Amino acid sequence: MLGDRTKTTIEPIRRLLRRGANAQVRKIVNKTHAADLSAAFRTLTFPDQKKLFSMIHDLEQKGLVFAELDEDLFLRIIEDMGVDEIVNILDTMASDDVADLMERFPDNLATEILRKMEKEGSAEVEGLLRYDTDTAGGIMVPDFVAVSKNTTAEQAIASLQKEYIDVEMPFYLYVTDDYGRLAGVSSLRQLVVVPPETPMKEFMTSDVYRVSTDTDQEEVARIVARYDILAVPVVDEDNKLVGIITVDDVIDIIRREATEDMFKMAGVGEEFVETQSVIKSTRIRLPWLFASCLGGVLAYFIIGRFEASLKQMTYLAAFIPVIMGMGGNIGTQSSTIVVRGIATGRINIRDLWKVVGKELSVGMILGAFYGFVVGGVAFLTHDKWALSFAVSLAVISSMSIAALVGSMFPLVFARLHIDPAVATGPFVTTSVDILSVFFYFQIATLLLNL
Amino acid sequence: MLGDRTKTTIEPIRRLLRRGANAQVRKIVNKTHAADLSAAFRTLTFPDQKKLFSMIHDLEQKGLVFAELDEDLFLRIIEDMGVDEIVNILDTMASDDVADLMERFPDNLATEILRKMEKEGSAEVEGLLRYDTDTAGGIMVPDFVAVSKNTTAEQAIASLQKEYIDVEMPFYLYVTDDYGRLAGVSSLRQLVVVPPETPMKEFMTSDVYRVSTDTDQEEVARIVARYDILAVPVVDEDNKLVGIITVDDVIDIIRREATEDMFKMAGVGEEFVETQSVIKSTRIRLPWLFASCLGGVLAYFIIGRFEASLKQMTYLAAFIPVIMGMGGNIGTQSSTIVVRGIATGRINIRDLWKVVGKELSVGMILGAFYGFVVGGVAFLTHDKWALSFAVSLAVISSMSIAALVGSMFPLVFARLHIDPAVATGPFVTTSVDILSVFFYFQIATLLLNL
Repeated sequence: MLGDRTKTTIEPIRRLLRRGANAQVRKIVNKTHAADLSAAFRTLTFPDQKKLFSMIHDLEQKGLVFAELDEDLFLRIIEDMGVDEIVNILDTMASDDVADLMERFPDNLATEILRKMEKEGSAEVEGLLRYDTDTAGGIMVPDFVAVSKNTTAEQAIASLQKEYIDVEMPFYLYVTDDYGRLAGVSSLRQLVVVPPETPMKEFMTSDVYRVSTDTDQEEVARIVARYDILAVPVVDEDNKLVGIITVDDVIDIIRREATEDMFKMAGVGEEFVETQSVIKSTRIRLPWLFASCLGGVLAYFIIGRFEASLKQMTYLAAFIPVIMGMGGNIGTQSSTIVVRGIATGRINIRDLWKVVGKELSVGMILGAFYGFVVGGVAFLTHDKWALSFAVSLAVISSMSIAALVGSMFPLVFARLHIDPAVATGPFVTTSVDILSVFFYFQIATLLLNL
Repeated sequence: MLGDRTKTTIEPIRRLLRRGANAQVRKIVNKTHAADLSAAFRTLTFPDQKKLFSMIHDLEQKGLVFAELDEDLFLRIIEDMGVDEIVNILDTMASDDVADLMERFPDNLATEILRKMEKEGSAEVEGLLRYDTDTAGGIMVPDFVAVSKNTTAEQAIASLQKEYIDVEMPFYLYVTDDYGRLAGVSSLRQLVVVPPETPMKEFMTSDVYRVSTDTDQEEVARIVARYDILAVPVVDEDNKLVGIITVDDVIDIIRREATEDMFKMAGVGEEFVETQSVIKSTRIRLPWLFASCLGGVLAYFIIGRFEASLKQMTYLAAFIPVIMGMGGNIGTQSSTIVVRGIATGRINIRDLWKVVGKELSVGMILGAFYGFVVGGVAFLTHDKWALSFAVSLAVISSMSIAALVGSMFPLVFARLHIDPAVATGPFVTTSVDILSVFFYFQIATLLLNL
């Protein structure tokens, strides 16, 4: 059974490091999976982190840990390392992992590293770096098995034993023509089950799911998830097979994208800021709060103009929180549903009116319900019709408007090719604040002066 | 290139159905992937949906579509189907997919179906139904390759051609002892590369990542994602191998869990309500808004007690939105970070004080900044020290408290084994509303009477 890795790995490492039992730490470290080591790193102080890294004996293990470290820690650890030491580690790593790390190095260091790396490795890495990080080209591995149409099953298997012995996940074998263009695919299982002398062309699937180098990574993830495949081939403009993206990388994409969307909607940047310094976290979150502050200040000016009504009925102020709060919550509900729906392909942006219509209906029904509740509270405590009606109508309008705005903004942004997750938060919050407050005081003033 | 499936599949189906070109619809339908068909279903009216389903000729394709349909639609389509017709379709499906569907059938229908299904299939399904849906036992497939330690590579490959010819993804072969207990694993690739007469025990990995039948599905997903494996074996209390969970199912878990968390935090239930009726959607969302309403009503009573201050300085009311808004937003930021961090394993619940401390610091810095901004606006428009200070201090305290509450609640809930995502939303919103308003008026009253 997989034990809680905190107990089996992380705690022991901490304890032994503190006690200075270095030999024992080395033993654990060199047989622990890199992903678990990275979790252990997060719990240590920086001096202990440096110490732990230096205890990793195996260069390949060092490379695997490199790929798993959080960005901040990675940069601090390489600060004290010589270029040659870094290059030796990178030479053991898969080129897609190296390409990902290259993004993190300061430019001059990156250039020097590429120069010093072994020719074959650095050429592959440079090839990958040509592509944008968030595209298929940027995540693919140029590490795949390709055979020709006339290769027999037997010959293909033999190539796995020689030529392609190092390919990480050879579960699909791709069939290419003389120009390297993708013609078909077969699974390793099919290879093993057909008569050995059968040529690939007789049992391969020619209708291959494929993506191009500029396909967005979210789309790649959607395709792998939708069709339950273990890898998807990547082709260039000439349909030449240039790499594959395996399902483990897709899982990472899906997780990161989900985190990214959640964070964008809350205005906390795009990645995990929790492991970064207070200063950095503050800097990332400050700008997004500005939109909210602006909305609040505008609301202040709006209320200011209704000073007369407030003097007339001071109790109007007491309902501001509940009206804004209910509106804000429904707005969040609607925008969360729509943003997530767009991201997972459940909502089609062509269905704008259908989706907005439904959300508005829900908003109005819920608004009517809670409008009745809050209006009831107002009436029971004040016995004033005008006030109770004003409050009820304000709640209904606030919630309906919020549902409308919350569902519409993400769809409009998606149509304009703006990321709905990042634009929705501030826009929805600010609009709902201002509109709720405006309608409330307008309605109240009208009813109070009847 | 994978075209936009809307253009290549969904639109044509709609058009042809409308035109009554049934033969052509049948042609498309019988060569389209079930996942794409399901997307097409979503865009049709119910009569067209029934028509489309009846046009699917292949029983196995019908089964695949069954598994992909949204719950509502599934129940409506089977309403008009006889039990025998349903059983025939289910008999073609994998038992884990059948087990999932069983959950949806009304109880008496489910019993009848199980009775009528082919003996082997129904026994497997009943076996799976014993487990809770959200556990490894509930998602696993009892469909794997198991050989003994002394089996040679050659013999194992032969078993893939005969005995295990129907196993869906035989990329890992498991090694079990005479009692069926898990002893090791080998990949298909290893099998193909070692000399054919080598026995499994010589090249298998004995240190196998495994989960037990009661392991939570989120934990299963974490393990598969962390160690980059394509499948994880599931064992019972006696360490007997009872099933495997493949990476494609894990991808579905990860997506669903991310959607679930996002929805829980916004108070929209757990699954996609967008495809459900307005009534159902309203019913799901109504209760969660109640907590927010309660908070707003409590805030109303609090402000009511400060009526005197309001009469003295009506302008106090105008700052309520911005103070509550800023607090609410920071509260959302903090709770989003912490809830997501716990879910992805980036934040350890033992680090409560460290995490809360960091969030509080960020809250105080951002509070100081925006407190200055808003206080400045107050001063520039009113030229009153007392009011400006009150507003500034209110913003600072509101934001600091929100950061504290927003980060602490999820961690405390997680420690008490309560789902942080579902509890956090209402608790944080309500507390922040009440506390912000209370501190604001308390501070303002104090300063105004100095």
